[in-house]
Amino acid sequence: MYRLYYAPGSANLLVHLALLEIGAPHELKRIDIEKGEQRSAAYLAINPNGVVPTLMIDGVPHGEAAALAMLLAERHPEATLAPVPGSTERADYLQWMLYLANTLQPLFRQWFYPGDHLPEGADAIKQAARAGIEKCWTKIDAHLATHGPYLLGENFSVVDLYALMLMRWSRNMPKPATAWPQLAALATRLKARPSWKRVCDAEGLIEWA
Amino acid sequence: MYRLYYAPGSANLLVHLALLEIGAPHELKRIDIEKGEQRSAAYLAINPNGVVPTLMIDGVPHGEAAALAMLLAERHPEATLAPVPGSTERADYLQWMLYLANTLQPLFRQWFYPGDHLPEGADAIKQAARAGIEKCWTKIDAHLATHGPYLLGENFSVVDLYALMLMRWSRNMPKPATAWPQLAALATRLKARPSWKRVCDAEGLIEWA
Ligand SMILES: N[C@@H](CCC(=O)N[C@@H](CS)C(=O)NCC(=O)O)C(=O)O
Ligand SMILES: N[C@@H](CCC(=O)N[C@@H](CS)C(=O)NCC(=O)O)C(=O)O
Repeated sequence: MYRLYYAPGSANLLVHLALLEIGAPHELKRIDIEKGEQRSAAYLAINPNGVVPTLMIDGVPHGEAAALAMLLAERHPEATLAPVPGSTERADYLQWMLYLANTLQPLFRQWFYPGDHLPEGADAIKQAARAGIEKCWTKIDAHLATHGPYLLGENFSVVDLYALMLMRWSRNMPKPATAWPQLAALATRLKARPSWKRVCDAEGLIEWA
Repeated sequence: MYRLYYAPGSANLLVHLALLEIGAPHELKRIDIEKGEQRSAAYLAINPNGVVPTLMIDGVPHGEAAALAMLLAERHPEATLAPVPGSTERADYLQWMLYLANTLQPLFRQWFYPGDHLPEGADAIKQAARAGIEKCWTKIDAHLATHGPYLLGENFSVVDLYALMLMRWSRNMPKPATAWPQLAALATRLKARPSWKRVCDAEGLIEWA
Protein backbone atom coordinates (compact mmCIF):
# COMPACT_ATOMS: atom_id res chain seq x y z
CA MET A 1 0.00 0.00 0.00
CA TYR A 2 1.21 3.50 -0.86
CA ARG A 3 0.63 6.69 1.09
CA LEU A 4 1.53 9.99 -0.55
CA TYR A 5 2.20 13.10 1.51
CA TYR A 6 1.33 16.03 -0.71
CA ALA A 7 0.61 19.71 -1.00
CA PRO A 8 -1.71 20.66 -3.86
CA GLY A 9 0.21 21.12 -7.12
CA SER A 10 3.66 20.66 -5.53
CA ALA A 11 6.42 18.24 -6.53
CA ASN A 12 4.11 15.40 -5.44
CA LEU A 13 2.10 15.97 -8.63
CA LEU A 14 4.52 13.81 -10.64
CA VAL A 15 4.30 10.96 -8.15
CA HIS A 16 0.54 11.26 -7.86
CA LEU A 17 0.13 11.17 -11.65
CA ALA A 18 2.34 8.08 -11.81
CA LEU A 19 0.21 6.34 -9.15
CA LEU A 20 -2.96 7.15 -11.10
CA GLU A 21 -1.50 6.02 -14.44
CA ILE A 22 -0.48 2.75 -12.78
CA GLY A 23 -3.83 2.38 -11.06
CA ALA A 24 -2.06 1.61 -7.78
CA PRO A 25 -4.19 1.89 -4.62
CA HIS A 26 -2.93 4.76 -2.48
CA GLU A 27 -3.90 7.02 0.40
CA LEU A 28 -3.31 10.76 0.39
CA LYS A 29 -2.16 12.80 3.36
CA ARG A 30 -2.16 16.55 2.95
CA ILE A 31 0.72 18.66 4.32
CA ASP A 32 -0.08 22.34 4.74
CA ILE A 33 3.07 24.04 3.47
CA GLU A 34 1.62 27.54 3.94
CA LYS A 35 1.38 26.73 7.65
CA GLY A 36 4.90 25.21 7.64
CA GLU A 37 3.72 21.68 8.46
CA GLN A 38 6.63 20.31 6.40
CA ARG A 39 8.95 21.52 9.18
CA SER A 40 7.01 19.86 12.03
CA ALA A 41 8.96 17.27 14.02
CA ALA A 42 6.53 14.56 12.87
CA TYR A 43 7.09 15.34 9.19
CA LEU A 44 10.86 15.84 9.50
CA ALA A 45 11.02 12.34 10.97
CA ILE A 46 9.84 10.92 7.63
CA ASN A 47 11.39 13.58 5.36
CA PRO A 48 14.53 15.15 6.89
CA ASN A 49 14.65 17.75 4.09
CA GLY A 50 11.23 19.06 5.07
CA VAL A 51 9.77 18.97 1.58
CA VAL A 52 6.93 17.24 -0.22
CA PRO A 53 6.54 14.64 -1.57
CA THR A 54 7.12 11.70 0.71
CA LEU A 55 5.87 8.30 -0.41
CA MET A 56 5.32 5.72 2.28
CA ILE A 57 5.85 2.25 0.83
CA ASP A 58 4.82 -0.58 3.14
CA GLY A 59 5.41 1.74 6.08
CA VAL A 60 8.85 3.01 4.99
CA PRO A 61 9.15 6.67 3.93
CA HIS A 62 10.99 7.69 0.75
CA GLY A 63 11.58 11.08 -0.83
CA GLU A 64 12.62 12.87 -4.04
CA ALA A 65 9.89 13.25 -6.64
CA ALA A 66 11.90 12.08 -9.67
CA ALA A 67 13.34 9.10 -7.77
CA LEU A 68 9.86 8.06 -6.68
CA ALA A 69 8.54 8.31 -10.23
CA MET A 70 11.40 6.10 -11.46
CA LEU A 71 10.81 3.66 -8.62
CA LEU A 72 7.08 3.40 -9.34
CA ALA A 73 7.79 2.85 -13.03
CA GLU A 74 10.07 -0.09 -12.23
CA ARG A 75 7.81 -1.56 -9.52
CA HIS A 76 4.90 -1.63 -11.99
CA PRO A 77 6.39 -2.57 -15.36
CA GLU A 78 2.94 -3.55 -16.71
CA ALA A 79 2.04 0.17 -16.77
CA THR A 80 4.91 0.78 -19.27
CA LEU A 81 5.70 4.18 -17.82
CA ALA A 82 9.42 3.82 -18.68
CA PRO A 83 11.64 1.86 -21.07
CA VAL A 84 12.95 -1.21 -19.25
CA PRO A 85 16.66 -1.69 -18.41
CA GLY A 86 18.48 -3.12 -21.40
CA SER A 87 16.15 -1.52 -23.97
CA THR A 88 17.59 0.87 -26.57
CA GLU A 89 15.41 3.71 -25.21
CA ARG A 90 16.78 3.33 -21.68
CA ALA A 91 19.66 5.82 -21.98
CA ASP A 92 17.34 8.47 -23.40
CA TYR A 93 14.85 7.91 -20.62
CA LEU A 94 17.46 8.32 -17.89
CA GLN A 95 18.97 11.32 -19.67
CA TRP A 96 15.63 13.16 -19.86
CA MET A 97 14.62 12.36 -16.29
CA LEU A 98 17.98 13.67 -15.10
CA TYR A 99 17.92 16.72 -17.34
CA LEU A 100 14.60 17.75 -15.79
CA ALA A 101 15.81 16.85 -12.29
CA ASN A 102 19.23 18.45 -12.58
CA THR A 103 18.55 21.54 -14.67
CA LEU A 104 14.88 22.56 -14.94
CA GLN A 105 13.33 21.61 -11.57
CA PRO A 106 16.16 23.35 -9.59
CA LEU A 107 15.52 26.57 -11.53
CA PHE A 108 11.90 26.42 -10.38
CA ARG A 109 13.09 25.95 -6.83
CA GLN A 110 15.03 29.22 -7.28
CA TRP A 111 12.02 30.93 -8.88
CA PHE A 112 9.64 29.93 -6.07
CA TYR A 113 12.11 30.11 -3.16
CA PRO A 114 14.66 32.76 -4.22
CA GLY A 115 15.56 33.65 -0.64
CA ASP A 116 15.85 30.03 0.49
CA HIS A 117 19.54 30.14 1.39
CA LEU A 118 20.21 33.87 1.88
CA PRO A 119 17.64 36.67 1.86
CA GLU A 120 19.98 39.06 0.01
CA GLY A 121 19.86 38.84 -3.74
CA ALA A 122 16.51 37.05 -3.90
CA ASP A 123 15.39 39.28 -6.73
CA ALA A 124 18.52 38.59 -8.81
CA ILE A 125 18.10 34.87 -8.22
CA LYS A 126 14.49 35.01 -9.35
CA GLN A 127 15.30 36.85 -12.56
CA ALA A 128 18.19 34.52 -13.39
CA ALA A 129 15.91 31.54 -12.75
CA ARG A 130 13.34 32.97 -15.12
CA ALA A 131 15.94 33.37 -17.87
CA GLY A 132 17.20 29.84 -17.27
CA ILE A 133 13.71 28.33 -17.34
CA GLU A 134 12.95 30.04 -20.65
CA LYS A 135 16.18 28.62 -22.15
CA CYS A 136 15.10 25.15 -21.05
CA TRP A 137 11.64 25.50 -22.63
CA THR A 138 13.26 26.60 -25.88
CA LYS A 139 15.46 23.49 -25.88
CA ILE A 140 12.68 21.09 -25.01
CA ASP A 141 10.37 22.65 -27.61
CA ALA A 142 13.04 22.21 -30.31
CA HIS A 143 13.56 18.60 -29.25
CA LEU A 144 9.82 17.89 -29.47
CA ALA A 145 9.63 19.46 -32.93
CA THR A 146 12.09 16.91 -34.29
CA HIS A 147 11.77 13.97 -31.90
CA GLY A 148 8.19 14.26 -30.53
CA PRO A 149 5.34 14.06 -30.01
CA TYR A 150 6.37 12.78 -26.57
CA LEU A 151 9.71 13.48 -24.90
CA LEU A 152 10.91 9.97 -25.71
CA GLY A 153 9.39 10.02 -29.19
CA GLU A 154 6.42 7.85 -30.12
CA ASN A 155 5.77 6.56 -26.62
CA PHE A 156 4.27 8.30 -23.62
CA SER A 157 6.36 7.89 -20.45
CA VAL A 158 6.82 9.21 -16.94
CA VAL A 159 9.15 11.86 -18.42
CA ASP A 160 6.04 13.49 -19.92
CA LEU A 161 4.32 13.55 -16.53
CA TYR A 162 7.40 15.27 -15.11
CA ALA A 163 7.33 17.85 -17.91
CA LEU A 164 3.59 18.38 -17.39
CA MET A 165 4.10 19.18 -13.70
CA LEU A 166 6.88 21.64 -14.52
CA MET A 167 4.82 23.25 -17.29
CA ARG A 168 2.00 23.78 -14.81
CA TRP A 169 4.45 25.45 -12.42
CA SER A 170 5.20 28.04 -15.11
CA ARG A 171 1.54 29.00 -15.62
CA ASN A 172 1.80 32.39 -13.88
CA MET A 173 5.28 33.26 -15.12
CA PRO A 174 5.80 36.11 -17.59
CA LYS A 175 6.27 33.52 -20.35
CA PRO A 176 4.59 30.21 -19.47
CA ALA A 177 5.67 26.96 -21.11
CA THR A 178 2.56 26.93 -23.27
CA ALA A 179 3.88 30.00 -25.13
CA TRP A 180 6.07 27.44 -26.97
CA PRO A 181 3.96 25.60 -29.58
CA GLN A 182 5.28 22.06 -29.14
CA LEU A 183 5.04 22.34 -25.38
CA ALA A 184 1.47 23.64 -25.67
CA ALA A 185 0.60 20.65 -27.87
CA LEU A 186 2.21 18.25 -25.40
CA ALA A 187 0.31 19.81 -22.47
CA THR A 188 -3.00 19.51 -24.35
CA ARG A 189 -2.33 15.87 -25.18
CA LEU A 190 -1.36 15.00 -21.60
CA LYS A 191 -4.26 16.90 -20.04
CA ALA A 192 -6.63 14.75 -22.12
CA ARG A 193 -5.52 11.64 -20.20
CA PRO A 194 -7.87 10.47 -17.44
CA SER A 195 -5.03 10.78 -14.88
CA TRP A 196 -5.03 14.56 -15.27
CA LYS A 197 -8.67 15.12 -14.35
CA ARG A 198 -8.34 12.68 -11.49
CA VAL A 199 -5.21 14.36 -10.08
CA CYS A 200 -6.83 17.80 -10.29
CA ASP A 201 -9.92 16.52 -8.46
CA ALA A 202 -7.90 14.69 -5.81
CA GLU A 203 -5.53 17.60 -5.10
CA GLY A 204 -8.24 20.25 -5.54
CA LEU A 205 -6.43 22.04 -8.37
CA ILE A 206 -8.51 24.72 -10.07
CA GLU A 207 -5.97 26.86 -11.94
CA TRP A 208 -4.57 25.40 -15.18
CA ALA A 209 -6.86 22.37 -14.64
CA MET B 1 32.89 0.28 -26.62
CA TYR B 2 32.58 3.49 -24.62
CA ARG B 3 34.04 6.89 -25.44
CA LEU B 4 33.92 9.58 -22.74
CA TYR B 5 34.13 13.27 -23.63
CA TYR B 6 35.62 14.97 -20.62
CA ALA B 7 37.22 18.07 -19.16
CA PRO B 8 39.59 17.40 -16.24
CA GLY B 9 37.70 17.23 -12.94
CA SER B 10 34.33 18.20 -14.44
CA ALA B 11 30.99 16.35 -14.19
CA ASN B 12 32.56 13.54 -16.25
CA LEU B 13 34.51 12.51 -13.13
CA LEU B 14 31.54 10.49 -11.85
CA VAL B 15 31.16 8.64 -15.15
CA HIS B 16 34.88 8.09 -15.49
CA LEU B 17 35.10 6.65 -11.97
CA ALA B 18 32.18 4.32 -12.73
CA LEU B 19 33.91 3.09 -15.91
CA LEU B 20 37.09 2.40 -13.94
CA GLU B 21 35.25 0.63 -11.10
CA ILE B 22 33.52 -1.55 -13.69
CA GLY B 23 36.74 -2.14 -15.58
CA ALA B 24 34.99 -1.33 -18.85
CA PRO B 25 37.24 -0.57 -21.84
CA HIS B 26 36.84 3.07 -22.86
CA GLU B 27 38.47 5.85 -24.87
CA LEU B 28 38.84 9.39 -23.60
CA LYS B 29 38.34 12.51 -25.68
CA ARG B 30 39.26 15.79 -24.04
CA ILE B 31 37.07 18.88 -24.52
CA ASP B 32 38.79 22.16 -23.72
CA ILE B 33 36.10 24.07 -21.84
CA GLU B 34 38.39 27.06 -21.18
CA LYS B 35 38.58 27.49 -24.97
CA GLY B 36 34.82 26.99 -25.32
CA GLU B 37 35.09 23.75 -27.29
CA GLN B 38 31.86 22.55 -25.66
CA ARG B 39 30.04 25.13 -27.77
CA SER B 40 31.60 24.10 -31.11
CA ALA B 41 29.16 22.88 -33.74
CA ALA B 42 30.77 19.44 -33.67
CA TYR B 43 30.29 19.05 -29.93
CA LEU B 44 26.78 20.56 -29.87
CA ALA B 45 25.80 17.89 -32.41
CA ILE B 46 26.46 15.21 -29.78
CA ASN B 47 25.54 17.27 -26.70
CA PRO B 48 22.94 19.98 -27.48
CA ASN B 49 23.36 21.45 -23.99
CA GLY B 50 27.04 22.14 -24.64
CA VAL B 51 28.29 20.51 -21.44
CA VAL B 52 30.52 17.64 -20.42
CA PRO B 53 30.18 14.73 -20.03
CA THR B 54 28.98 12.95 -23.13
CA LEU B 55 29.29 9.18 -23.25
CA MET B 56 29.30 7.58 -26.67
CA ILE B 57 27.86 4.08 -26.42
CA ASP B 58 28.22 2.00 -29.57
CA GLY B 59 28.38 5.23 -31.54
CA VAL B 60 25.31 6.88 -29.95
CA PRO B 61 25.91 9.94 -27.73
CA HIS B 62 24.24 10.28 -24.33
CA GLY B 63 24.45 13.00 -21.68
CA GLU B 64 23.76 13.81 -18.02
CA ALA B 65 26.39 12.62 -15.57
CA ALA B 66 24.03 11.08 -13.02
CA ALA B 67 21.96 9.34 -15.72
CA LEU B 68 25.13 7.89 -17.25
CA ALA B 69 26.30 6.62 -13.87
CA MET B 70 22.94 4.92 -13.32
CA LEU B 71 23.02 3.49 -16.83
CA LEU B 72 26.53 2.08 -16.39
CA ALA B 73 25.54 0.54 -13.05
CA GLU B 74 22.66 -1.30 -14.69
CA ARG B 75 24.57 -2.31 -17.82
CA HIS B 76 27.25 -3.92 -15.64
CA PRO B 77 25.42 -5.52 -12.71
CA GLU B 78 28.45 -7.71 -11.91
CA ALA B 79 30.28 -4.58 -10.67
CA THR B 80 27.55 -4.14 -7.99
CA LEU B 81 27.68 -0.36 -8.21
CA ALA B 82 23.98 -0.05 -7.35
CA PRO B 83 21.23 -2.07 -5.64
CA VAL B 84 19.26 -3.91 -8.31
CA PRO B 85 15.59 -3.16 -9.09
CA GLY B 86 13.35 -5.00 -6.66
CA SER B 87 15.89 -4.97 -3.81
CA THR B 88 14.98 -3.30 -0.53
CA GLU B 89 17.86 -0.80 -0.95
CA ARG B 90 16.62 0.36 -4.36
CA ALA B 91 14.42 3.25 -3.12
CA ASP B 92 17.27 4.61 -1.02
CA TYR B 93 19.66 4.39 -3.94
CA LEU B 94 17.35 6.32 -6.26
CA GLN B 95 16.57 8.83 -3.52
CA TRP B 96 20.24 9.62 -2.87
CA MET B 97 21.18 9.82 -6.55
CA LEU B 98 18.32 12.24 -7.10
CA TYR B 99 19.03 14.25 -3.97
CA LEU B 100 22.55 14.88 -5.23
CA ALA B 101 21.33 15.52 -8.78
CA ASN B 102 18.41 17.74 -7.84
CA THR B 103 19.76 19.69 -4.88
CA LEU B 104 23.54 19.61 -4.45
CA GLN B 105 24.95 19.48 -7.99
CA PRO B 106 22.73 22.41 -9.17
CA LEU B 107 24.06 24.55 -6.30
CA PHE B 108 27.59 23.89 -7.58
CA ARG B 109 26.47 24.94 -11.06
CA GLN B 110 25.39 28.26 -9.45
CA TRP B 111 28.65 28.50 -7.52
CA PHE B 112 30.84 27.96 -10.59
CA TYR B 113 28.62 29.70 -13.17
CA PRO B 114 26.78 32.38 -11.18
CA GLY B 115 26.28 34.60 -14.23
CA ASP B 116 25.12 31.78 -16.46
CA HIS B 117 21.63 33.09 -17.13
CA LEU B 118 21.92 36.80 -16.32
CA PRO B 119 25.12 38.71 -15.49
CA GLU B 120 23.38 40.86 -12.84
CA GLY B 121 23.29 39.38 -9.39
CA ALA B 122 26.07 36.86 -9.97
CA ASP B 123 27.59 37.66 -6.61
CA ALA B 124 24.31 37.15 -4.75
CA ILE B 125 23.80 33.86 -6.55
CA LYS B 126 27.27 32.69 -5.60
CA GLN B 127 26.81 33.50 -1.93
CA ALA B 128 23.40 31.84 -1.79
CA ALA B 129 24.89 28.77 -3.49
CA ARG B 130 27.63 28.64 -0.89
CA ALA B 131 25.10 28.76 1.94
CA GLY B 132 23.01 26.05 0.26
CA ILE B 133 26.00 23.79 -0.32
CA GLU B 134 27.03 24.05 3.33
CA LYS B 135 23.49 23.09 4.41
CA CYS B 136 23.70 20.01 2.20
CA TRP B 137 27.06 18.94 3.64
CA THR B 138 25.64 19.27 7.14
CA LYS B 139 22.73 17.01 6.20
CA ILE B 140 24.87 14.40 4.48
CA ASP B 141 27.38 14.38 7.34
CA ALA B 142 24.57 13.77 9.84
CA HIS B 143 23.21 10.95 7.68
CA LEU B 144 26.64 9.30 7.49
CA ALA B 145 27.08 9.54 11.27
CA THR B 146 23.99 7.39 11.82
CA HIS B 147 23.67 5.41 8.58
CA GLY B 148 27.27 5.24 7.22
CA PRO B 149 29.99 4.51 6.54
CA TYR B 150 28.82 4.74 2.90
CA LEU B 151 25.84 6.77 1.71
CA LEU B 152 23.76 3.61 1.36
CA GLY B 153 25.10 2.12 4.60
CA GLU B 154 27.38 -0.92 4.63
CA ASN B 155 27.84 -1.09 0.87
CA PHE B 156 29.85 1.11 -1.43
CA SER B 157 27.88 2.32 -4.48
CA VAL B 158 27.91 4.80 -7.33
CA VAL B 159 26.25 7.29 -4.95
CA ASP B 160 29.60 7.50 -3.13
CA LEU B 161 31.43 8.25 -6.39
CA TYR B 162 28.93 11.04 -7.02
CA ALA B 163 29.53 12.45 -3.52
CA LEU B 164 33.30 12.18 -4.03
CA MET B 165 33.18 14.26 -7.20
CA LEU B 166 31.06 16.91 -5.49
CA MET B 167 33.35 16.94 -2.44
CA ARG B 168 36.31 17.55 -4.73
CA TRP B 169 34.47 20.47 -6.32
CA SER B 170 34.26 22.12 -2.89
CA ARG B 171 38.02 21.92 -2.24
CA ASN B 172 38.69 25.64 -2.75
CA MET B 173 35.50 26.89 -1.15
CA PRO B 174 35.60 28.79 2.14
CA LYS B 175 34.38 25.65 3.90
CA PRO B 176 35.22 22.51 1.91
CA ALA B 177 33.28 19.27 2.42
CA THR B 178 36.19 17.75 4.32
CA ALA B 179 35.61 20.26 7.13
CA TRP B 180 32.77 17.88 8.14
CA PRO B 181 34.23 14.82 9.90
CA GLN B 182 32.10 12.06 8.36
CA LEU B 183 32.56 13.50 4.89
CA ALA B 184 36.31 13.71 5.44
CA ALA B 185 36.32 10.04 6.49
CA LEU B 186 34.27 9.07 3.44
CA ALA B 187 36.62 10.97 1.11
CA THR B 188 39.66 9.26 2.64
CA ARG B 189 38.06 5.84 2.25
CA LEU B 190 37.07 6.46 -1.38
CA LYS B 191 40.41 7.99 -2.34
CA ALA B 192 42.08 4.75 -1.20
CA ARG B 193 40.30 2.84 -3.98
CA PRO B 194 42.40 2.10 -7.08
CA SER B 195 39.85 3.93 -9.27
CA TRP B 196 40.76 7.25 -7.65
CA LYS B 197 44.46 7.15 -8.49
CA ARG B 198 43.67 5.97 -11.98
CA VAL B 199 41.14 8.73 -12.63
CA CYS B 200 43.55 11.39 -11.36
CA ASP B 201 46.28 10.06 -13.64
CA ALA B 202 43.98 9.76 -16.65
CA GLU B 203 42.47 13.25 -16.27
CA GLY B 204 45.70 14.84 -15.08
CA LEU B 205 44.30 15.99 -11.73
CA ILE B 206 46.89 17.33 -9.33
CA GLU B 207 44.90 19.31 -6.75
CA TRP B 208 43.05 17.27 -4.12
CA ALA B 209 44.52 14.12 -5.70
N1 LIG C 1 14.28 17.54 -4.25
C1 LIG C 1 12.90 17.55 -3.79
C2 LIG C 1 12.38 18.97 -3.78
C3 LIG C 1 10.92 19.05 -3.42
C4 LIG C 1 10.43 20.47 -3.21
O1 LIG C 1 11.13 21.46 -3.51
N2 LIG C 1 9.18 20.57 -2.70
C5 LIG C 1 8.59 21.85 -2.41
C6 LIG C 1 7.23 22.00 -3.06
S1 LIG C 1 7.30 21.89 -4.83
C7 LIG C 1 8.38 22.01 -0.92
O2 LIG C 1 8.18 21.03 -0.20
N3 LIG C 1 8.43 23.23 -0.42
C8 LIG C 1 8.24 23.56 0.94
C9 LIG C 1 9.52 24.03 1.59
O3 LIG C 1 10.60 23.97 0.96
O4 LIG C 1 9.44 24.51 2.74
C10 LIG C 1 12.05 16.67 -4.69
O5 LIG C 1 12.25 16.72 -5.92
O6 LIG C 1 11.19 15.93 -4.19
N1 LIG D 1 23.33 18.45 -16.21
C1 LIG D 1 24.69 18.24 -16.69
C2 LIG D 1 25.56 19.42 -16.27
C3 LIG D 1 27.00 19.22 -16.62
C4 LIG D 1 27.84 20.46 -16.39
O1 LIG D 1 27.37 21.44 -15.76
N2 LIG D 1 29.09 20.42 -16.90
C5 LIG D 1 30.01 21.53 -16.77
C6 LIG D 1 31.34 21.11 -16.17
S1 LIG D 1 31.16 20.45 -14.54
C7 LIG D 1 30.31 22.11 -18.15
O2 LIG D 1 30.29 21.40 -19.14
N3 LIG D 1 30.57 23.40 -18.19
C8 LIG D 1 30.88 24.10 -19.39
C9 LIG D 1 29.82 25.06 -19.77
O3 LIG D 1 28.72 25.08 -19.16
O4 LIG D 1 30.04 25.85 -20.71
C10 LIG D 1 25.26 16.92 -16.17
O5 LIG D 1 25.01 16.62 -15.00
O6 LIG D 1 25.93 16.20 -16.94
